[in-house]
Amino acid sequence: MLLPGQIDFEGPFPKFSRRLRLGVVGGGRVSGMQATAARLSYRWDVVAGAMSSDPVRAKTAAADWFLDEDRCYTSFAEMAEVEAARDDGVDAVMITTPNHLHHDAAIAFLNKGIDVLCDKPLTNEVSEADALIEAAEKSGCVFGVSYVMSCFAVIRQARDLVASGAIGRINQIHVEFMQDWMTPDDVADAPHVKWRLDPAKSGKTSCVGDIGTHAAHLAQFVSGLAMKEVRADFHVCGAPKPLEDTAFMTTRFEGGVPGTLMCTRLAPGNRGGLRLRIFGSEGGIEWDLENSEQLKLNRFGQPDQIISRGHGHGMTTANERLVRTARGFPEGIIEAWGNLYTEFAMAVAARKDGIRAPSDWLGMPRVADGAKGVAFIEASFQSHQSGGAWVHI
Amino acid sequence: MLLPGQIDFEGPFPKFSRRLRLGVVGGGRVSGMQATAARLSYRWDVVAGAMSSDPVRAKTAAADWFLDEDRCYTSFAEMAEVEAARDDGVDAVMITTPNHLHHDAAIAFLNKGIDVLCDKPLTNEVSEADALIEAAEKSGCVFGVSYVMSCFAVIRQARDLVASGAIGRINQIHVEFMQDWMTPDDVADAPHVKWRLDPAKSGKTSCVGDIGTHAAHLAQFVSGLAMKEVRADFHVCGAPKPLEDTAFMTTRFEGGVPGTLMCTRLAPGNRGGLRLRIFGSEGGIEWDLENSEQLKLNRFGQPDQIISRGHGHGMTTANERLVRTARGFPEGIIEAWGNLYTEFAMAVAARKDGIRAPSDWLGMPRVADGAKGVAFIEASFQSHQSGGAWVHI
Amino acid sequence: MLLPGQIDFEGPFPKFSRRLRLGVVGGGRVSGMQATAARLSYRWDVVAGAMSSDPVRAKTAAADWFLDEDRCYTSFAEMAEVEAARDDGVDAVMITTPNHLHHDAAIAFLNKGIDVLCDKPLTNEVSEADALIEAAEKSGCVFGVSYVMSCFAVIRQARDLVASGAIGRINQIHVEFMQDWMTPDDVADAPHVKWRLDPAKSGKTSCVGDIGTHAAHLAQFVSGLAMKEVRADFHVCGAPKPLEDTAFMTTRFEGGVPGTLMCTRLAPGNRGGLRLRIFGSEGGIEWDLENSEQLKLNRFGQPDQIISRGHGHGMTTANERLVRTARGFPEGIIEAWGNLYTEFAMAVAARKDGIRAPSDWLGMPRVADGAKGVAFIEASFQSHQSGGAWVHI
Amino acid sequence: MLLPGQIDFEGPFPKFSRRLRLGVVGGGRVSGMQATAARLSYRWDVVAGAMSSDPVRAKTAAADWFLDEDRCYTSFAEMAEVEAARDDGVDAVMITTPNHLHHDAAIAFLNKGIDVLCDKPLTNEVSEADALIEAAEKSGCVFGVSYVMSCFAVIRQARDLVASGAIGRINQIHVEFMQDWMTPDDVADAPHVKWRLDPAKSGKTSCVGDIGTHAAHLAQFVSGLAMKEVRADFHVCGAPKPLEDTAFMTTRFEGGVPGTLMCTRLAPGNRGGLRLRIFGSEGGIEWDLENSEQLKLNRFGQPDQIISRGHGHGMTTANERLVRTARGFPEGIIEAWGNLYTEFAMAVAARKDGIRAPSDWLGMPRVADGAKGVAFIEASFQSHQSGGAWVHI
Repeated sequence: MLLPGQIDFEGPFPKFSRRLRLGVVGGGRVSGMQATAARLSYRWDVVAGAMSSDPVRAKTAAADWFLDEDRCYTSFAEMAEVEAARDDGVDAVMITTPNHLHHDAAIAFLNKGIDVLCDKPLTNEVSEADALIEAAEKSGCVFGVSYVMSCFAVIRQARDLVASGAIGRINQIHVEFMQDWMTPDDVADAPHVKWRLDPAKSGKTSCVGDIGTHAAHLAQFVSGLAMKEVRADFHVCGAPKPLEDTAFMTTRFEGGVPGTLMCTRLAPGNRGGLRLRIFGSEGGIEWDLENSEQLKLNRFGQPDQIISRGHGHGMTTANERLVRTARGFPEGIIEAWGNLYTEFAMAVAARKDGIRAPSDWLGMPRVADGAKGVAFIEASFQSHQSGGAWVHI
Repeated sequence: MLLPGQIDFEGPFPKFSRRLRLGVVGGGRVSGMQATAARLSYRWDVVAGAMSSDPVRAKTAAADWFLDEDRCYTSFAEMAEVEAARDDGVDAVMITTPNHLHHDAAIAFLNKGIDVLCDKPLTNEVSEADALIEAAEKSGCVFGVSYVMSCFAVIRQARDLVASGAIGRINQIHVEFMQDWMTPDDVADAPHVKWRLDPAKSGKTSCVGDIGTHAAHLAQFVSGLAMKEVRADFHVCGAPKPLEDTAFMTTRFEGGVPGTLMCTRLAPGNRGGLRLRIFGSEGGIEWDLENSEQLKLNRFGQPDQIISRGHGHGMTTANERLVRTARGFPEGIIEAWGNLYTEFAMAVAARKDGIRAPSDWLGMPRVADGAKGVAFIEASFQSHQSGGAWVHI
Repeated sequence: MLLPGQIDFEGPFPKFSRRLRLGVVGGGRVSGMQATAARLSYRWDVVAGAMSSDPVRAKTAAADWFLDEDRCYTSFAEMAEVEAARDDGVDAVMITTPNHLHHDAAIAFLNKGIDVLCDKPLTNEVSEADALIEAAEKSGCVFGVSYVMSCFAVIRQARDLVASGAIGRINQIHVEFMQDWMTPDDVADAPHVKWRLDPAKSGKTSCVGDIGTHAAHLAQFVSGLAMKEVRADFHVCGAPKPLEDTAFMTTRFEGGVPGTLMCTRLAPGNRGGLRLRIFGSEGGIEWDLENSEQLKLNRFGQPDQIISRGHGHGMTTANERLVRTARGFPEGIIEAWGNLYTEFAMAVAARKDGIRAPSDWLGMPRVADGAKGVAFIEASFQSHQSGGAWVHI
Repeated sequence: MLLPGQIDFEGPFPKFSRRLRLGVVGGGRVSGMQATAARLSYRWDVVAGAMSSDPVRAKTAAADWFLDEDRCYTSFAEMAEVEAARDDGVDAVMITTPNHLHHDAAIAFLNKGIDVLCDKPLTNEVSEADALIEAAEKSGCVFGVSYVMSCFAVIRQARDLVASGAIGRINQIHVEFMQDWMTPDDVADAPHVKWRLDPAKSGKTSCVGDIGTHAAHLAQFVSGLAMKEVRADFHVCGAPKPLEDTAFMTTRFEGGVPGTLMCTRLAPGNRGGLRLRIFGSEGGIEWDLENSEQLKLNRFGQPDQIISRGHGHGMTTANERLVRTARGFPEGIIEAWGNLYTEFAMAVAARKDGIRAPSDWLGMPRVADGAKGVAFIEASFQSHQSGGAWVHI
């Protein structure tokens, strides 16, 4: 495939003489999006799935996805078993089930030596997350976690700028994720929403585990600083519900750097307001998912700079590798997902080919990042429970 | 003066057969700005001042301001005494001294029956603020406080929209004031900055009393809800200093509505980021001082709306009264200051003429608003001192 | 595939029991982008190609694209011949060669009954374009043309708004396409640029035929008015070159509506400034490719409105059909390309299944639109040659 | 007055030991705005006026403006006579009458040795403009013309950047002025609009002479290149009217640099869209009156830069001289007007004091600039009359 930069990586991987085979575990729009992104990466074919435990719906899904009927399973356990035994079985699976099934599904495939890319939050319990780290290690499998925001090309550039000292010593970190889709009182009853408010499936949190964890990961990814402590208030701002729809937090990062974190699904007029701001002794950077192609960089005492994708507007060649579309034509989140699936493919191919991928090739989040996310969710929950005490993450 | 709308108010005031006479108490850029705005309002002439206790600098100021030398005083006490005795003495004074002098200066003029427009924070101590409320009442004088952000025409429109139910029941209130001028380590030593970090002059806080109080007033003014409780962390993010340069707060408004409030002077790339966001059950509004002519209104389920000054873009006639400039030509903060001085002039003229101005004429903040601001500053300080406990305001 | 809206269309097409088979005629980044978009649409597999007449490069392309070596041809004539004879031959081809080959390549496939999606400009000569209309008609084949800008969901919404009278009677139409990639003097020598400045390949124009024609199509697509006359000046603004890099035009649409059209590749700071503005007696709409998800709608006397993709921000359900990504997560041009390939797939499947697709299903531009584009290019060239006379299109 | 930078200029001018005395010739909102700006500059008092030839309205205006009744004249001839004879007569006048009176009014005051600041367009006829140049020269008076857009601090910065080679050799110049206030069909009948469409008062053009001339001046001021030729089409886009409401032009500047110029009052959603774009061999600059505090600078191959007022964001100290408001608080057009009146005051004081102001002090447009504007209007009219021929300016 002639897309720029990416061919540099094909050479070392004999496995890229073919596309890799991906299985889908979980249904709905999220898996559709990810499957599309996997296709976009040009390195994956979707060949099997466990989209529903209901045989009729599984069959329908097979037809919708153009899958062989006998590779549309009604359980992930069966899928792992059968696919592992096939010569043309899946090389890897994506897991996009409700949260409470992530652990069991992942274990089933790891046990069969099948690589995994799992949705966030990794699990509902810290202990399950730890178990997955261990299982991944034991199996030797690749285990990616879909903190997809870290796969935007400009976000990689932001991280590199901060690391290079462009904004000096970090003084403050602010991140928020504001959506508005839960504004109507009755939206909580919609079938694809219901499980997100059910503690048995969503875990101890709803909004925090869904989007707060994206915010926390992004802040740490770009700043290069680990979040160490959190103080949280959870709120139900709209119609009554069993879990929070909004949370306000103050945070402490390595070295005592203070910050704030907010997430809500009830901010009318905010479609996808994931906004990161990092301020330092010599400058600041700002990014907003709603305007995802632009990175604002301020170096104090100079004009503001707008860095954007496309050679010649401030991106390094290393990060341009993640760009598919010619300068001047907009990209969106599907390309960030595509980058995640490209890096996942590289890691999978490297493992199959017995190659050790240089660490700076791949920014893809891994199981350990997923586990840190679970710890953040747990700590914020504990803080909220205690009336807003500082809790170590 | 033919500016539209405003002439409607001239009729009832015999005192507007002449311009009113304003005295300036305090020097520096802030008083220059306000004097200019007073002139802009077309209802004031600046005729006297106590700009410096140093006789030489007072004389220079007189020349700079084209004032008669004998009306440039070296103390506000003398100024109050002499001006009150003159037939053509000042009708009112603006007070723009460092914070710790506000109380004494205001008392001096109130005691002589001279109306006052005082800078925020009103005082450094709650007890002093209470004393000013009492003194104002006893004197019968007009006592305005310069929470100027509430005098932007679109901010008045925002308040009216919220009051009319355009965004439904309020669910969350977020406000922040982010500046960057204190980013360089050495800026704290500049003469016009020094007093802002000196507890003897600035009071218990620096950043909170300077810009945090603007944020708190604006949130309450537009939402129509009083802030009841606050939880605060103060930070020194940049070079060491005796008072905070940054503060993060969570807040509770009437009816339990939760919110956040942030202020900092170390956010590189933020020149004047006073940003208000109020989210309700049916919509939201957002405003940013850096883009002060636009008010974003979302009514959930409809396209976002941008409301702007200039007939025909969503402003009511009542608020267009505050607009001077033809549609299509930008206004800035000087016009908000001008509105404050226009409303102050109306209140002063009404008092002189024995007219009772209908309450909906004037949105100008008064001494009671100033006292509430002092209580907010005190509560946030107490919360910070206690490690972040909720403190009643 | 579970992406919303799109499954509604699967039912009537037995051919969608499988993915359709696409062949690629032409190489380079443009075909890579389109192939990716075809995959994104989930209705196409890329199975064959004529990417280069050089056998070695054809082989490399086959490997890059994961194609069977025997389906990577060195001529489109051979490809048409062989693929037409295969049971699993391509259902359709995309043509992305340099302009001067479009006609011959398209004829080769039409003659074999293979559907075609051809890049713009359709041809370099009006006579060739007419020949393609005739050949398409005779063959009964589907013939799409890649004016992809008309496939953004918000552009469809813009068209519907104008048609519904939201802006009243149209008074003015302005469109411009401003890029900056040709700013450096030496860029014209780059291999992928060279043919664009070679009259033998690019035709009588370079910038006009490449991006001016996008602008002209978009203006007509959204306004619903045909462009009737044009007056043009061509310029070489940068380094000397055999064809124009910039053109300024004034235009006349049906009913005498006046307009302007500009295109240039030398506007530093403009990455992809395709900007459309249509003003009417009661309002106006504005769109900019650099901010492609937002459509500005003004209804005179009301606040400006920002219409965006995602249910509940002003898009109709009919246009939401073209949206893949959940509200709040950005889309880019790949999704517009995907929409083009989805509509092309529907048209191809309908033909194969003997179904007549209702005309309002498909906004995809067709061969007749392509021919109108060629006529526009020719007319603007004639006008330029004549020193700026009005020329009928 | 303590506003920064400006005091540097007080020293050399003995006349600034007092404020200068300004007379107003012409009524309505425009003169109100300018009078306010003159007050804002802190160097002018408004002391006399000829606001109406109707004695009753003149009296009302005197009251509105707080002027002495005996200095509110019903003719400018009388005003010139009487004021010239007074010891405390006006130092200068602003002329804001309808266009056709500019010449006679200006002559009346020049003949009495009174300095003039005249609205644009300077006159309706080229011959009258030439006569004013001559009269100004003979009288030795200061003669400013209110091309106020050139008095924004960031516009001065733009000019300096272009002059310093920041964007290389200029290749293209685009400017447009788009308003929407004339969209409603009945607005042309409003009393303050009527004269603008009456050829006897407005001259041969309406929109071009009102706002097109602003656009033409701005393009030349910032680029430093004179506009040499123009080709124009005038349009009546809305309700029928005797003069154009819209014009589209192509232009040629010194050295053959091509450009475009558009103006219209019927672009709904455009409040004050005066937009300038200059593209060169190494970069480009863009400015929009609707976002007047930001100047976009692109240097090709680098991130876009946003230059803004306020020390440390890319403005030079020389241009910061024109800034009144602290960094972070927005300015608008009143400050540009204020800058014009400041520079006019300096020129007037310099003349009175017999000082020759260094030429780089004052960017204020002069009578020669006004005459060039008249020539531009005439040339565009001739071009339109001839069906769009190139006409030399």
